[in-house]
Amino acid sequence: MPPPGRSEKFIQRLRTVCLLAGGGVDEQGQPSEEVSMGQRVDINADLGEGYGAYTFGMDEEMMPVITSANVACGAHAGDPVIMRDTVRRALQSDTAVGAHLGYPDLWGFGRRHVDLSAEQLYSFLVYQLGALQALAGSLGASLQHVKPHGALYNEAAGSADLSAVVCDAICDFDDNLVLFAPAGSTTVRVARDRRLRVAEEGFADRAYTAQGTLVPRDQPGAVIQDPGEVASRAVMLARGEIPTAEGGTLKLNIDTICLHGDTPGAVRIARRVRHELEESGIKVQTASSFLRSQHSG
Amino acid sequence: MPPPGRSEKFIQRLRTVCLLAGGGVDEQGQPSEEVSMGQRVDINADLGEGYGAYTFGMDEEMMPVITSANVACGAHAGDPVIMRDTVRRALQSDTAVGAHLGYPDLWGFGRRHVDLSAEQLYSFLVYQLGALQALAGSLGASLQHVKPHGALYNEAAGSADLSAVVCDAICDFDDNLVLFAPAGSTTVRVARDRRLRVAEEGFADRAYTAQGTLVPRDQPGAVIQDPGEVASRAVMLARGEIPTAEGGTLKLNIDTICLHGDTPGAVRIARRVRHELEESGIKVQTASSFLRSQHSG
Amino acid sequence: MPPPGRSEKFIQRLRTVCLLAGGGVDEQGQPSEEVSMGQRVDINADLGEGYGAYTFGMDEEMMPVITSANVACGAHAGDPVIMRDTVRRALQSDTAVGAHLGYPDLWGFGRRHVDLSAEQLYSFLVYQLGALQALAGSLGASLQHVKPHGALYNEAAGSADLSAVVCDAICDFDDNLVLFAPAGSTTVRVARDRRLRVAEEGFADRAYTAQGTLVPRDQPGAVIQDPGEVASRAVMLARGEIPTAEGGTLKLNIDTICLHGDTPGAVRIARRVRHELEESGIKVQTASSFLRSQHSG
Amino acid sequence: MPPPGRSEKFIQRLRTVCLLAGGGVDEQGQPSEEVSMGQRVDINADLGEGYGAYTFGMDEEMMPVITSANVACGAHAGDPVIMRDTVRRALQSDTAVGAHLGYPDLWGFGRRHVDLSAEQLYSFLVYQLGALQALAGSLGASLQHVKPHGALYNEAAGSADLSAVVCDAICDFDDNLVLFAPAGSTTVRVARDRRLRVAEEGFADRAYTAQGTLVPRDQPGAVIQDPGEVASRAVMLARGEIPTAEGGTLKLNIDTICLHGDTPGAVRIARRVRHELEESGIKVQTASSFLRSQHSG
Repeated sequence: MPPPGRSEKFIQRLRTVCLLAGGGVDEQGQPSEEVSMGQRVDINADLGEGYGAYTFGMDEEMMPVITSANVACGAHAGDPVIMRDTVRRALQSDTAVGAHLGYPDLWGFGRRHVDLSAEQLYSFLVYQLGALQALAGSLGASLQHVKPHGALYNEAAGSADLSAVVCDAICDFDDNLVLFAPAGSTTVRVARDRRLRVAEEGFADRAYTAQGTLVPRDQPGAVIQDPGEVASRAVMLARGEIPTAEGGTLKLNIDTICLHGDTPGAVRIARRVRHELEESGIKVQTASSFLRSQHSG
Repeated sequence: MPPPGRSEKFIQRLRTVCLLAGGGVDEQGQPSEEVSMGQRVDINADLGEGYGAYTFGMDEEMMPVITSANVACGAHAGDPVIMRDTVRRALQSDTAVGAHLGYPDLWGFGRRHVDLSAEQLYSFLVYQLGALQALAGSLGASLQHVKPHGALYNEAAGSADLSAVVCDAICDFDDNLVLFAPAGSTTVRVARDRRLRVAEEGFADRAYTAQGTLVPRDQPGAVIQDPGEVASRAVMLARGEIPTAEGGTLKLNIDTICLHGDTPGAVRIARRVRHELEESGIKVQTASSFLRSQHSG
Repeated sequence: MPPPGRSEKFIQRLRTVCLLAGGGVDEQGQPSEEVSMGQRVDINADLGEGYGAYTFGMDEEMMPVITSANVACGAHAGDPVIMRDTVRRALQSDTAVGAHLGYPDLWGFGRRHVDLSAEQLYSFLVYQLGALQALAGSLGASLQHVKPHGALYNEAAGSADLSAVVCDAICDFDDNLVLFAPAGSTTVRVARDRRLRVAEEGFADRAYTAQGTLVPRDQPGAVIQDPGEVASRAVMLARGEIPTAEGGTLKLNIDTICLHGDTPGAVRIARRVRHELEESGIKVQTASSFLRSQHSG
Repeated sequence: MPPPGRSEKFIQRLRTVCLLAGGGVDEQGQPSEEVSMGQRVDINADLGEGYGAYTFGMDEEMMPVITSANVACGAHAGDPVIMRDTVRRALQSDTAVGAHLGYPDLWGFGRRHVDLSAEQLYSFLVYQLGALQALAGSLGASLQHVKPHGALYNEAAGSADLSAVVCDAICDFDDNLVLFAPAGSTTVRVARDRRLRVAEEGFADRAYTAQGTLVPRDQPGAVIQDPGEVASRAVMLARGEIPTAEGGTLKLNIDTICLHGDTPGAVRIARRVRHELEESGIKVQTASSFLRSQHSG
């Protein structure tokens, strides 16, 4: 777990790796992120999505398999007790914790658009971030990352305005947090402009179009359920190339792979994915362990 | 605005004041809190209690008159936008900001008992603290104090168990925060046991019993509405003695005087109180400016 | 603009009645819509929009001035106690009661779009209707009408799909209720197709475009605040013609005039409007008293 | 325990009927309560307790096994879509539908006390009743019964004041509804005083004290999990006698047996109970089919 404060030795080794891998070296003599591509990957899942007496997903089984847990913050799901319990469970598994930020929509589980103004959304996101950070802090933990949830995630992916609100909230709260966003999305671009660290995210159980978007769920072949196939697609994602629904090949820069924890067979798939990644020589690590801070550049 | 890191000069001056005032000096050579009694007092009010389109109270007018603003955190009142706006307004008036923590009861404005378990309450209070701290932080501000609201305030005042939950939440979040609690209450005692700084609170517009509790609102003479009378009672409170409903005199150690911002004439009363206090030679200051940290002892 | 689904016989008789002037009577001895145009009008206002400790608008003063009260049903505003109190107050003033149906958005006061599915919206509207009807029933009252609120009102006005959901909910709940909708809007058309009674609504304090839509609030002259001007525009609306922002004249069939109860001067304006209408010989009556049921046609 | 308000004639006829055995008929051709005791029983369960994306309990499997479904009304659980779906499912199984009324406490699933005033509780219960009735009505169904939920159920069982609020809400909404309440409880007495029909309720999977109360869950033997034992206790309850935890025998007048739908093995237990009851010659019927209205007496 080297960063922050990378040693000289580490930086030299990176330069060598860059040349060998045909990777870039930027103006500051810093290795580009692409170098790590295909060698390290984070696995994230949405956890802590119960509410009061309601449970949701197989948190207990999923936690040790993943490296980053997206914890619901009471907007689309989660309550203060569940939030704290989820952080405690993450600590026990050495899993990094992030804020899973949603619209104010418990009834719709954050999957519905709610037409907040920029000011309302900004304030509400900061509110959620602070609430989770405080609960994590009460257990001696702190946040690694942020991931927008549901409708907010999808809408921000294609909207520079919405992404700007999300990024502003994160920057003003703690600009060392990593933002998880769809690989190649507008959110990634906006976050990089603000020098936020970004983990580009891929979905191993979803088919991709040639444009790099997910095939909508209602189309045939959109969701892959065979554990073996999901696992081998996870390896392809980690290596940066995935076949598209159209039959071509899509290049993606994937830092984290999202797994679902609430579907039948979810745990079995997750374990298979992790096993296959490690068998393929890909290191499964928390995103913050290998994502270079743009601020240190 | 001397503390933290009190200068030698400041400490020496305090020793002199102690001797002159017949006040105590503790083992650590620190002036006891009693010394400042009758000389300095904080004025607090509950602000930011609107919700969405709903307004509540005369925040704009009250803010410059008081020294500590209790900001609702979305439980009994307040929403993320109002919370942030209230902190911004406080910054403009050099008013200290505190978290006004309530039960999850927007409908009842936090005035109803909600039977939370200790774990639920603890987590929910930490949640509120974090949310407000984050919004304050986004404006470069930080919290000075915490005040329980409504039913929680009243119930904690007489319950060591409930006070313990409140104090634990504060200690685990930030043990440098000042707790505002009814003068002489169980909450004060429990907080002092945990070495939390406490501002003992008095109500200038309410009659007191010989036991030091407030005369219930439904009894005649319970609420004082005449601005002059409220102001002179504020001076008495700040000096540590108030006549009781029974006709005797009650000694109280008052660090902060609570004023209401939502009643007719509230602003006029508040201005009168502040004026009278200052005319009487009592310095009106934020609680944290004169409350010695027990941790530094 | 003759509404669909009227028999030849009915239309002929109306013609005769028109010649005889202001006293038309249909088969059931009910005055017909067309005849009453320009002679009778309903006045409605949104009331009961507080929540818990929050008040909103001048319900007490507005109630006796209007003939139809739109009562919030707990979605965008209102709670069970306020709903019941508002119905009680309406009964005391002989004001008709209607359900003011909103999106699930207390924070946004129903002014924000919430992206409900048709099934969710339908069920939620029926839920609100039943809740208010039950509270009205507990006082011996029943509902006269339904008016969508805020974002739902505006969105439905231009959407046949959304209007269909609103109308279906009303029809399935009680197809004798009158729907209040913007004069000439899609909602009016969809409701008439379902043979719902519709009160076409006009705004006396808002400027109209030549297309019959309201001039957006952020444009100059959009909102009229002078009581005299609002009152004379109310008379024009009741008579079916209003000057447009562009300088022309717009013909509208207005059954009910919406007044605001939450702005400065609202009560004074409302009283002036009512007075002016009555002085001009226009009878101010509840919508259901002069809107013929299409079912009985 | 002869209920009040029965004529001499009625009681005499019942005596005759008793001699003839299990087929009593009252003036209206309805079987009387007394006759059916030990021969007919209703089975109820709490269903529709999900919320949005959250599921709770095995509604689909439980519905055909029971005769009365208690449907959550959006207070402690349930949303408008789930409420309607649950009613639809009940219609398909010929199961009677009732309103399961709770405190406003989604987070606590209605298991926490919320300190509502009588007026607040009354209005909130009427609100819930109307909402469910409207959704049922949209499917052509109507309500058979009402059952308080969780903390409200338990608190009302021992409080005449709280029971009075519940009964007043029901009477004012629809005094033909049957109230489900713990056998022998204060709620039963208060409801009978108001001439409400009451189904006295027993729990086949819970141990009883000699006083007729349930043994608290945290005591050994409080909850019975063996399907065979639960089933034979159900038969005993239906026949009016159950062994107590102390070793004696408790006489109870049971009209309805409550089964849980959310525990492991719930469905298997439910089926076993129903089978055993029917094998024992006890008719399993909806409560309203054998509970004589006191109003018709």
